Amino acid sequence: MTLKNLNGLNFNKLSENQITELEQAAKRARINSLTMIQGANSGHPAGAFSSIEMLLSVYGLANLTPENADSFDRDNIIISHGHVSAGVYAVLAEYGFVDIEDAVKNFRRCKSAFQGHVVREVPGIDWSTGNLGQGLSAGVGYALAQRARNYKGHVYVLTGDGGQTKGQLAEARRVAVNEKLNNITALIDLNEHQICGDINDVMHCNIKALWEADGWYYIECNGHDFNELFDAIKKARELDSPCVIACKTVMGKFGGVMENTSEYHGKATGEKNYYDIIKSLGGDENLLASVNDYRKKNLIPEYHGRLIKPIEPVLEFGERFRYSPDIKTDNRSAFGNVLTQTGELNYKKTNHTPILVFDCDLAPSVMTANFKKSCPDNFIQCGIQEHATATISGAAAAGGTLSLWADFGMFGLDEAYNQHRLNDINNAGNKLVLTHTGLDVGEDGETHQCIDYVGLMRNMFGWKILVPADPNQTDLITRWMLKTPGCMCLAMGRSKVDVIPEFYDEDYKFEYGKAVKLRSGKSGSIFALGYMTQTALKAADKLKAESNIDVSVYCVSCPLEADIEAITEAAETNFIITLEDHHVRTGIAPVIAMAMAENNLHTKFKKLGVSHYGLSGSSQEVRKFMGLTVDGVIENVNELLRK
Amino acid sequence: MTLKNLNGLNFNKLSENQITELEQAAKRARINSLTMIQGANSGHPAGAFSSIEMLLSVYGLANLTPENADSFDRDNIIISHGHVSAGVYAVLAEYGFVDIEDAVKNFRRCKSAFQGHVVREVPGIDWSTGNLGQGLSAGVGYALAQRARNYKGHVYVLTGDGGQTKGQLAEARRVAVNEKLNNITALIDLNEHQICGDINDVMHCNIKALWEADGWYYIECNGHDFNELFDAIKKARELDSPCVIACKTVMGKFGGVMENTSEYHGKATGEKNYYDIIKSLGGDENLLASVNDYRKKNLIPEYHGRLIKPIEPVLEFGERFRYSPDIKTDNRSAFGNVLTQTGELNYKKTNHTPILVFDCDLAPSVMTANFKKSCPDNFIQCGIQEHATATISGAAAAGGTLSLWADFGMFGLDEAYNQHRLNDINNAGNKLVLTHTGLDVGEDGETHQCIDYVGLMRNMFGWKILVPADPNQTDLITRWMLKTPGCMCLAMGRSKVDVIPEFYDEDYKFEYGKAVKLRSGKSGSIFALGYMTQTALKAADKLKAESNIDVSVYCVSCPLEADIEAITEAAETNFIITLEDHHVRTGIAPVIAMAMAENNLHTKFKKLGVSHYGLSGSSQEVRKFMGLTVDGVIENVNELLRK
Repeated sequence: MTLKNLNGLNFNKLSENQITELEQAAKRARINSLTMIQGANSGHPAGAFSSIEMLLSVYGLANLTPENADSFDRDNIIISHGHVSAGVYAVLAEYGFVDIEDAVKNFRRCKSAFQGHVVREVPGIDWSTGNLGQGLSAGVGYALAQRARNYKGHVYVLTGDGGQTKGQLAEARRVAVNEKLNNITALIDLNEHQICGDINDVMHCNIKALWEADGWYYIECNGHDFNELFDAIKKARELDSPCVIACKTVMGKFGGVMENTSEYHGKATGEKNYYDIIKSLGGDENLLASVNDYRKKNLIPEYHGRLIKPIEPVLEFGERFRYSPDIKTDNRSAFGNVLTQTGELNYKKTNHTPILVFDCDLAPSVMTANFKKSCPDNFIQCGIQEHATATISGAAAAGGTLSLWADFGMFGLDEAYNQHRLNDINNAGNKLVLTHTGLDVGEDGETHQCIDYVGLMRNMFGWKILVPADPNQTDLITRWMLKTPGCMCLAMGRSKVDVIPEFYDEDYKFEYGKAVKLRSGKSGSIFALGYMTQTALKAADKLKAESNIDVSVYCVSCPLEADIEAITEAAETNFIITLEDHHVRTGIAPVIAMAMAENNLHTKFKKLGVSHYGLSGSSQEVRKFMGLTVDGVIENVNELLRK
Repeated sequence: MTLKNLNGLNFNKLSENQITELEQAAKRARINSLTMIQGANSGHPAGAFSSIEMLLSVYGLANLTPENADSFDRDNIIISHGHVSAGVYAVLAEYGFVDIEDAVKNFRRCKSAFQGHVVREVPGIDWSTGNLGQGLSAGVGYALAQRARNYKGHVYVLTGDGGQTKGQLAEARRVAVNEKLNNITALIDLNEHQICGDINDVMHCNIKALWEADGWYYIECNGHDFNELFDAIKKARELDSPCVIACKTVMGKFGGVMENTSEYHGKATGEKNYYDIIKSLGGDENLLASVNDYRKKNLIPEYHGRLIKPIEPVLEFGERFRYSPDIKTDNRSAFGNVLTQTGELNYKKTNHTPILVFDCDLAPSVMTANFKKSCPDNFIQCGIQEHATATISGAAAAGGTLSLWADFGMFGLDEAYNQHRLNDINNAGNKLVLTHTGLDVGEDGETHQCIDYVGLMRNMFGWKILVPADPNQTDLITRWMLKTPGCMCLAMGRSKVDVIPEFYDEDYKFEYGKAVKLRSGKSGSIFALGYMTQTALKAADKLKAESNIDVSVYCVSCPLEADIEAITEAAETNFIITLEDHHVRTGIAPVIAMAMAENNLHTKFKKLGVSHYGLSGSSQEVRKFMGLTVDGVIENVNELLRK
């Protein structure tokens, strides 16, 4: 049986018949979700039971249906408390998104889409969650994407109450208000229980005062009463500000032993309790046995969920800028020039993908200030709130924009690592631009040195990192990044650098994954990460001029990839040196060492990089004290040749 | 000239003479800090100028002097807006903590203690900051440490206003109130400017309402008026709740062109403006020239700051628990047993280091619930607020306790990476216990799989990671961790595991960095991370029994270290396999590959680990689909032997 979607509030009041249908659906959803959990002997039943009416109401009212779930022009729904997954799957089945039998049988089983925490692979789910506190940020990202695409829809974010204390939630609230969003509604499942007990005992948090202090309109309703829920949602949609609905619920509602206790937050009820509850709900007492039979057979589930692909942007690009070898400029300016040019060419053009640029109070330094001037409506100031910004920019990409956040490396990645991990799991396809990376942050000192961007990104599976060497390569790489789908991170230092003639060449094309050979020599080989290439080149040239030693120099701009061809060739020389202003244990050194080990290649190997927290001084001085200079490289070359 | 410290508010009202002295000191501090910045041609002058009176007042009143700065029993001062460093150093000099000439000449120079953002190496500074939003958490950590040590002192946290939007700040506020702290006062430099302009334009934030909603007492005062500042601080100290003082200030106060603008947030004023300001302040116009002369000489600064060492805990330990090979138990329970035992033995004992245990609503799962029962006053519930908790637990260690935070791997490390990086930079010496790591989280799915803890920690310099294989090793490693100074992370899965007889042995001693050889064979070698050792052992035993193939098995419990002796020995066999339920690119595989490359060792090399986001199912099933089983290992051994 499938409930009818009311599609965007075209109703005045629920009829008695509709209420009866919804109440019956709620009963079925409780029975099905409890059976999922008991069958898996694992899950979160009590929260699922308290959220059922909220879920039925939101999925009933939103313009989100099985038919439009794969398109952009519709409402979005984010389930921030992803652990109530069993309840969500049961409700999605009521509206025809998924097959209830499949969900009940394969909940929390390998290869099934019905994971323990909700994932985007399930139709009707717009954000994979599980780490609390990120859902509202995802909702804000979708709401901004709707606005940028000129789509007049709405975004619903359902959250629990335990996670109301997460700081990221407050950050997202403020961005919503700062952006004057009126297309987002949050609903809190206010059951007053979290794992360790009553939310007021565990960690008191004045929910109403905090939402209101941040400028949200606050409504309360009975979270188990469909009339109150529908009225509240209707009111929220008519407001010209973001609105939060505090839904007063009972933990484990209609779940007998589960009611009003934290005990069944995260575990199955056990069979005795299960049958008591099923009986009280009028459920089929044979259901569980058939599920257990199926699960014992250990069949691999057939339905793995839908395929989530990042957006393929539709954009017009201008001519590349060329920086001649007789000038010095910084890579971040070269990035900014491409961004502004592309922004201007596509700003508010019908059928072009909107480019949204996010900032955390650093626009002048990260070179997005000109984009802001040219494309003011597509520039989103998020303030000093990096956790929310990371997720917002991810969800804005998932919502159909080309979303780009530029920040200092330390704030953009180190501070928001877990948010970017969730973006990756969501295959969101957002772009992250890091400036002031490595030791090249100037005099700000050790807290500001982002010497771990490669080492952090390497822990994920989807992200690509791009570290250009010079402004010409930056220009080409930025264009490539803007047009290529997927999560990508562009990393650049702060200083002006020499132009490398090979990249100034009109014929140079950027090829992802390739280490570019800029000098050729038989004595040894240097692999340099991004903007350390110039140092390697100078060392090679000095070695040639002063000692007639020929070394190869490879520019590595894609540090997550091992260019096996280049490494194989280099392993035939006397040594391989890796050179980077990155943590020496986690940058390109391990990539090359692993490629050598796996391909049984050998030669002398030396890694040069950051071996302790840096000092506070000019980038040049800091590198000098770390031994990452032309003379430092030469010294190491000579030592390896003597060995 | 050195100002007199008023040492803990033993005063009624400032005398006219005192005010005159403070005003003169403020002038000198402005002159000195501006000269630092102009000499370095880099820094944050306008914020330094707006904070000067706040700094002079707090350092004047707190029981923190050059004499007691290296002891625990004193007040603590945290400068959260670490970029106002020039102002801080100038004020510290007024109270005799540092030499003003040294600070002025060597500000922001390599090898000088006077970094761009304040660091603990400078006496009078209790927390190295730079990443905004963490200071209040550090203050709460120190305040909890004072309480646990039974010291009746006070903690002052100075913050800017731009960073008031950081979510972590709100989390820390709530912990302070939840813990009923009355020994902490926050002061906000309310100059209403941040990098991109007026704070209300960049990102509106209702500061008063938010602090009050979280339960703090809120006072306002003129942040340039010593009488008002002293009165406000006195009042704050007398309250029985945490108090925040909003100090209304003028950005760049007394700085001419810098006043009331965001322009000089983060750059020197230039020489012309410099001389105008110095003249108006009555400063020595020759000062800058002498600083410039000195800096041109490029001498290496003599004073590098004090040495910061993590606490050496004074604790009594009980007998080790022994888990016999005929039972199965989980490592996290073995950890919990040692923690409870040690907690009980030392609880509230004079001259013993207090053990503080932090929780984020997961005590029952991370096995700290028994500690809570036995040592209730030393158990700190922080709610679902991981960012604040990470910093609080770090600062509590720096404040003289044995501070331990236990959480799921994903929440304890992935979510709080940057906070742990700051703990490392601070050499705080806190302990982080991660459970449910790797794929061993049960059915919760991909968002909960912490497959990157080694890869994340490897980006820092001080942290040690410990991954025990079985409960007996867990017992010994936990004891070792509790008694050894330094930042340490203990990582464990969720499941019950087999006891490894070698670790049950009474003579087994844990040795940090050593890979323990549990099987010896000439055919090949397997290095297994922690609790994957059992899988490797079973594979080795099956290979021996069924195919008479002898492989060595090494248990790696210290994945950041390469045991060169073991690797050298293994490289003499036909192959090395690494086995881990960790991201295959960032766990032990690269450590061993790098050690092979650097030591010119070779043999066939194969890495087995997590190669894509995991599925949602039982740990066993998830590992099976990832190929990390006994049969998976055997298959790889056979393939390598065939090659």
